[in-house]
Amino acid sequence: METEQAQRRSRPDAGSSEDHFDVFACACPSRPTLEHITGRWGVLTLGGLAQGPLRFNELARRVDGVSQKMLSQTLQALERDGFVEREVLATLPPHVVYRLTPVGVAVADKLMGLIADLEALMPQVLDAQARYDGREAD
Amino acid sequence: METEQAQRRSRPDAGSSEDHFDVFACACPSRPTLEHITGRWGVLTLGGLAQGPLRFNELARRVDGVSQKMLSQTLQALERDGFVEREVLATLPPHVVYRLTPVGVAVADKLMGLIADLEALMPQVLDAQARYDGREAD
Repeated sequence: METEQAQRRSRPDAGSSEDHFDVFACACPSRPTLEHITGRWGVLTLGGLAQGPLRFNELARRVDGVSQKMLSQTLQALERDGFVEREVLATLPPHVVYRLTPVGVAVADKLMGLIADLEALMPQVLDAQARYDGREAD
Repeated sequence: METEQAQRRSRPDAGSSEDHFDVFACACPSRPTLEHITGRWGVLTLGGLAQGPLRFNELARRVDGVSQKMLSQTLQALERDGFVEREVLATLPPHVVYRLTPVGVAVADKLMGLIADLEALMPQVLDAQARYDGREAD
């Protein structure tokens, strides 16, 4: 890992240097992280945890349609990136909860803002889709 | 908030009624649109057009790593949703440019905010990844 990071630092191209990240550059390490937070399930998982910690099954119900396998992979990627943490509660039997880290809260806030905007824009989106499909049918 | 969400969850048609959209409900028409704007290439395509209209090849260079086929599919989905419009300029030969619609500008602004935040957070993300990988290796 250290070696990969060292190589990354020494590479001269923009987007992979320590102090400059650019998601538009395909070799930038921010690109996979962008995909984790905006991917099919990443947005909904972070959004689902925005109101507080949840157990796996609670989160699976909130993120309607996700499979156990996909939710588990999504949580693992988000945990590795430092957006989500897994906590084992000292209950009997022990419960595992997932919660946003402070960095995860910052990202989830932005995503929830995007989701709220999108939900508000949906009537316009549906109109646009109907117009587009009508044009295609002509 | 909590009450509204509880009601939303209990309504059998939640997410599919005309006046209320909920991306967390898997049947809601906002779900595919969320995937168009946050998908692997959707974010970068909207972000790439945020600074002004571009021709297809200019956009393809900006969205480093995208194939012609994927960019074309992404633009088509974003055009259908009403975020992007395709304009044929009356030049000789005619040029086609892609530009954000006003709705597209609103969404792209939010996405660019998210991207800027993520790029700023990347040093923390890389640290988290190194810690996670170190723990896994133990």
